[in-house]
Amino acid sequence: MTLVNKLAVQALQWNGRALKVLDQRQLPQVVAYDEYTDASGVAEAIRSMRVRGAPAIGIAAAYGVVLSAQQHLAAGATNWQDKVLQDIALLAAARPTAVNLFWALQLMQQTLQQSPAEPIVALADLAMQIHQEDLAANLRMGELGADILQGAKGVLTHCNAGALATGGHGTALGVIRSAWQRGLRNVYAGETRPWLQGARLTVWELAQDGIPATLIADSAAAWLMQSGAIDWIVVGADRIALNGDAANKIGTYSLAVLAKYHGVKVMVAAPTSTIDWSMATGAQIEIEERQASELLPACYLEGESLISAWNPVFDVTPAHLIDAIVTERGVVLNPAQEGVGSLRS
Amino acid sequence: MTLVNKLAVQALQWNGRALKVLDQRQLPQVVAYDEYTDASGVAEAIRSMRVRGAPAIGIAAAYGVVLSAQQHLAAGATNWQDKVLQDIALLAAARPTAVNLFWALQLMQQTLQQSPAEPIVALADLAMQIHQEDLAANLRMGELGADILQGAKGVLTHCNAGALATGGHGTALGVIRSAWQRGLRNVYAGETRPWLQGARLTVWELAQDGIPATLIADSAAAWLMQSGAIDWIVVGADRIALNGDAANKIGTYSLAVLAKYHGVKVMVAAPTSTIDWSMATGAQIEIEERQASELLPACYLEGESLISAWNPVFDVTPAHLIDAIVTERGVVLNPAQEGVGSLRS
Repeated sequence: MTLVNKLAVQALQWNGRALKVLDQRQLPQVVAYDEYTDASGVAEAIRSMRVRGAPAIGIAAAYGVVLSAQQHLAAGATNWQDKVLQDIALLAAARPTAVNLFWALQLMQQTLQQSPAEPIVALADLAMQIHQEDLAANLRMGELGADILQGAKGVLTHCNAGALATGGHGTALGVIRSAWQRGLRNVYAGETRPWLQGARLTVWELAQDGIPATLIADSAAAWLMQSGAIDWIVVGADRIALNGDAANKIGTYSLAVLAKYHGVKVMVAAPTSTIDWSMATGAQIEIEERQASELLPACYLEGESLISAWNPVFDVTPAHLIDAIVTERGVVLNPAQEGVGSLRS
Repeated sequence: MTLVNKLAVQALQWNGRALKVLDQRQLPQVVAYDEYTDASGVAEAIRSMRVRGAPAIGIAAAYGVVLSAQQHLAAGATNWQDKVLQDIALLAAARPTAVNLFWALQLMQQTLQQSPAEPIVALADLAMQIHQEDLAANLRMGELGADILQGAKGVLTHCNAGALATGGHGTALGVIRSAWQRGLRNVYAGETRPWLQGARLTVWELAQDGIPATLIADSAAAWLMQSGAIDWIVVGADRIALNGDAANKIGTYSLAVLAKYHGVKVMVAAPTSTIDWSMATGAQIEIEERQASELLPACYLEGESLISAWNPVFDVTPAHLIDAIVTERGVVLNPAQEGVGSLRS
């Protein structure tokens, strides 16, 4: 865990017996960790958005499988493997859009079903490997992305694709961190309604690392682009289809359309675990809709109300609006040309 | 005041001796009026955004001049006119972007300087006339705008250009109210960060009139357009230049760019008092920036912070992104062709 411990911000801490989850709902006012010792607790941490961000959700779920195996083996049940499989199904149902969740759980399930001699050790090793590899991937993406941003006068990011959303360093924020070390100075963050990941998490995380940032209302992004202050949008992704279409936080598609109009470029930074190799285009991506209460004042939710809310949490940016997809295996420029198939190992 | 009293929602109530201002900061939870008996109170009501919306600000300021005259005449000062002129300057400084404010104050000042035999009666008559004419203008705009929206499957509005922002009925919401009476059924409102005029005021106002509405995050507008749910954006304006460029709530420019990309049309509904006949293009419009605290969690505002906010309250939509400007004097289609000069009386 050496690499992880070097980083100031950790969404997830694993101590071999429990998973500590930073409750991101309370940031930036309160920095508090909740400790989980079983899979249903981890599933609840994902569902309740204590932990969020596609890579971090996958890592948390992997540790959740370790906790499940520990619990059911300790209980001595002969069908403990079936109970772990039930927990895997429970974890998979916690959020619908992030493909990393299913990817991590599939790896964990494969190892489980290989019936290793020491299942808990094998599962814990795999979960820690998933965590470490995500961090290493982010550090690699940071360098590759910073190469592209060389000389940029300003960048805007959306939501939080940072250390908090990943195993550390971050995807989009990893690129921004690396670019900052090379001299990038103007970093803007959209506040990202309704959950305010930008206002609560992204600028907080950047400030922890000594990086100044300027917050804007999401709807001010077009006016910012019009002012000439930025030349790149840098975002993460929750799922990328084979043709390069990318699902990410609601508002990313909006930024990409606005960027095209203003001659601003769009970078998606995401590990290859975010790519859904089974999905031809983004049209097939299921878009999670969350509760109206995230948008509506409480008085509209009581009794019969004429007021409703439409609250899709993600949108899909078509590949032709993306200038670069940055992964740990390399960069795809202009993904609309040939998609991301070249990144398949 | 007959027409005004028929309407459910009144931002401003004038009783001949005081101006009651609905405190819009407390909506939708609390419906409370503050009563003002002098101009400095009215200026504070404008500055603090108890009353907002370009036409309503102008009307409130006009009543503020009446209160000023009442106060200083009652005090018996021989230089009471100078004191009223000082109050007019105070009112003019309350908000910088809305041209209706300066327009209304200029009319009041002209009447004051004509030294009418009964100055208070003359000023009160003029203020009530400004109020009534705004309401009548909105009713007329509603009909003209609804003509254009005939057959629209859905519309999206931004901020609050409703009864609350005007003398009654509303500009953009006046159009939507009138179109609703003719069968329009799908009305969407952007929540409008940072002040949430859409979430707090627009859907509340529509519900008072029995009109169902669906709230969305501002950044979901592009995804809504992409879904095909709407064919018009309908907004108000705080200032319109001669060439048809229109300043309105931050995010309006964003919507107009997104609309162009998606084949959605843009309507600006505003009384001709919103047109700044002295301004050739929108490039000259001063854009108010408000406090960072409207965007930033309090913990970033304490001591030295690496985190700042950029909080422009308005943006300027160029005429070539506007399909129709609807005023009480008529409609200008494709204002980029010849501007709005034809509306000058």
